[in-house]
Amino acid sequence: MRIPFTTMKAEVKRVLLKVGMTEEKAEICASVHTESSRDGVYSHGLNRVARFVDYVKKGWVDVNAEPTLILKSGAMENYDGNRGPGILNAKFAMNRAIAISKEHGIGLVTLRNTTHWMRGGTYGWDAADKGYAAICWTNTESCMPAWGAKNTRLGNNPFVIALPREEGNIVLDMAMSQFSYGKLQVTRLKNELLPVPGGYDKDGNLTSTPGLIEESMRILPTGYWKGSGFAILLDTVAAILSNGLATSGIDKVQEGSCGGCSQIFIVIDPYVAGGKDFVERTLNETVAYIKTSEPAIAGGEIYYPGELSAKTRKENMEKGIPADDNVWNEILSL
Amino acid sequence: MRIPFTTMKAEVKRVLLKVGMTEEKAEICASVHTESSRDGVYSHGLNRVARFVDYVKKGWVDVNAEPTLILKSGAMENYDGNRGPGILNAKFAMNRAIAISKEHGIGLVTLRNTTHWMRGGTYGWDAADKGYAAICWTNTESCMPAWGAKNTRLGNNPFVIALPREEGNIVLDMAMSQFSYGKLQVTRLKNELLPVPGGYDKDGNLTSTPGLIEESMRILPTGYWKGSGFAILLDTVAAILSNGLATSGIDKVQEGSCGGCSQIFIVIDPYVAGGKDFVERTLNETVAYIKTSEPAIAGGEIYYPGELSAKTRKENMEKGIPADDNVWNEILSL
Repeated sequence: MRIPFTTMKAEVKRVLLKVGMTEEKAEICASVHTESSRDGVYSHGLNRVARFVDYVKKGWVDVNAEPTLILKSGAMENYDGNRGPGILNAKFAMNRAIAISKEHGIGLVTLRNTTHWMRGGTYGWDAADKGYAAICWTNTESCMPAWGAKNTRLGNNPFVIALPREEGNIVLDMAMSQFSYGKLQVTRLKNELLPVPGGYDKDGNLTSTPGLIEESMRILPTGYWKGSGFAILLDTVAAILSNGLATSGIDKVQEGSCGGCSQIFIVIDPYVAGGKDFVERTLNETVAYIKTSEPAIAGGEIYYPGELSAKTRKENMEKGIPADDNVWNEILSL
Repeated sequence: MRIPFTTMKAEVKRVLLKVGMTEEKAEICASVHTESSRDGVYSHGLNRVARFVDYVKKGWVDVNAEPTLILKSGAMENYDGNRGPGILNAKFAMNRAIAISKEHGIGLVTLRNTTHWMRGGTYGWDAADKGYAAICWTNTESCMPAWGAKNTRLGNNPFVIALPREEGNIVLDMAMSQFSYGKLQVTRLKNELLPVPGGYDKDGNLTSTPGLIEESMRILPTGYWKGSGFAILLDTVAAILSNGLATSGIDKVQEGSCGGCSQIFIVIDPYVAGGKDFVERTLNETVAYIKTSEPAIAGGEIYYPGELSAKTRKENMEKGIPADDNVWNEILSL
């Protein structure tokens, strides 16, 4: 089924109010969940609301907690998220990084002891919509083996870079695993194969069959050894700079996905060096350069990062946001 | 053959002095080229010296040019590299970023109109050796198709993250292509296959045969669509923040690899939030966590980023640095 944006948001908000969120906070969180589904990131939109509610009920997320400033030093601020809602903590941190960048040209906010921020791209799009360049990432519990290993020791540590552009922001939102477990499940249920190998079966053969990877838990890092190494650096940089937990520590907490995680928010004024006209021209030239490539498949289109999200957004605002019947009914029942 | 470090460095220095570098600058550049070979990055060490000399003779690199400050704003400085030697410009920029981070907690230096910085890891190792966390990257001329395209429009835009650690720095140094053209060539000459598919043949089939990829020029981005998107963001962020050229502009310059490229250097004091003991403990715990994974192959070891470089360094300092006979003889003849 397809649900209008306002209907979906109102239902999510109702559920969040019911678990004790204030009006203002429920409004923000409901918007973010609905916007994620609207942009096609269903896994972290409507589909995550029931799990969030479950975490609140288990005491893993404190709906009323707010971030507290631990340390301020130059262009850097460090906050404790106090296990408040990950969306609110991350929105707060990105806004602080924007404010700092106005003063210092660049702003760094580090956040420890927070909870799942849902869709990482949310904070990149936010910054870009406001005219800022942003780099942000989170660490997570382990879900992927390091390169050369069999058992899970690395987080998929989603990483976001965003740039503002009038004709459409350029936003990269990528996890360090080639595919998410959500993608494996969806593909298996459709009885399809992954477009490229996504992991190893239990005998150590690369495979595109999702069920075999779910069984072995040997999901593949993005670019094999490269994504493995990148995940290690994203994890440790986030932990160190926030005085928070690394994946090895999050694995001990065991309070749901990302319970107690560490996050980094870097914001830069993109117009300082060259001005806005230069930025727009450079980005438009780059988009044009890519788009005039010869497509690999006749009639194929080459997209810039964020373009498909914007396309899905437009379509879902017109036609309603796709929702799984069971998921929607569960929300209505909460 | 294997050449002692001091012999290799002296020969490279002699060659650089001969093309007009000052004593002091030749010393630095010769050190960096030799250190790259020492750490096993032969492609950007001794093997690149002849090409550097060629660029100088063609007027593409001005051995005497120095970076000039264009703009200073808070924790951000923007420099023009004036097409000076990429190594010297990048060393300068990283040192400035370190100096800024001492004042602001974080330092951002953007560099435009520079030339090939050789091995990106150089600047990450430098910062980590001095006790700083660093993120840096460069854009390049195009050498890789965007995802879904046939012809080259993206740079491989090497990206570096480095963290200091007493038992061994953790340093990621990765390009956005799954393999370099150098790796394709070396593998083809040995009549071997790549360990995983590295691109498409001219008929659009994924292949591990290096010669077929060299023929099609359809080298694969790291993680398929992910590396393609990441390359686009690294390129445009570098160009915008430095008021410099993006890959689309570098492709027009056509003054060798990376002629006129843009670079970003971000340095952060890693000890501000948690102190040095906390940082050491977090990094050591993470390394231990990864290393105690079950190896995919019996007896296999799991490495952290930078570990193999450090291992190669030790071996090459003891036994001498491996050098191709032809490459070494060419250096002697210059």
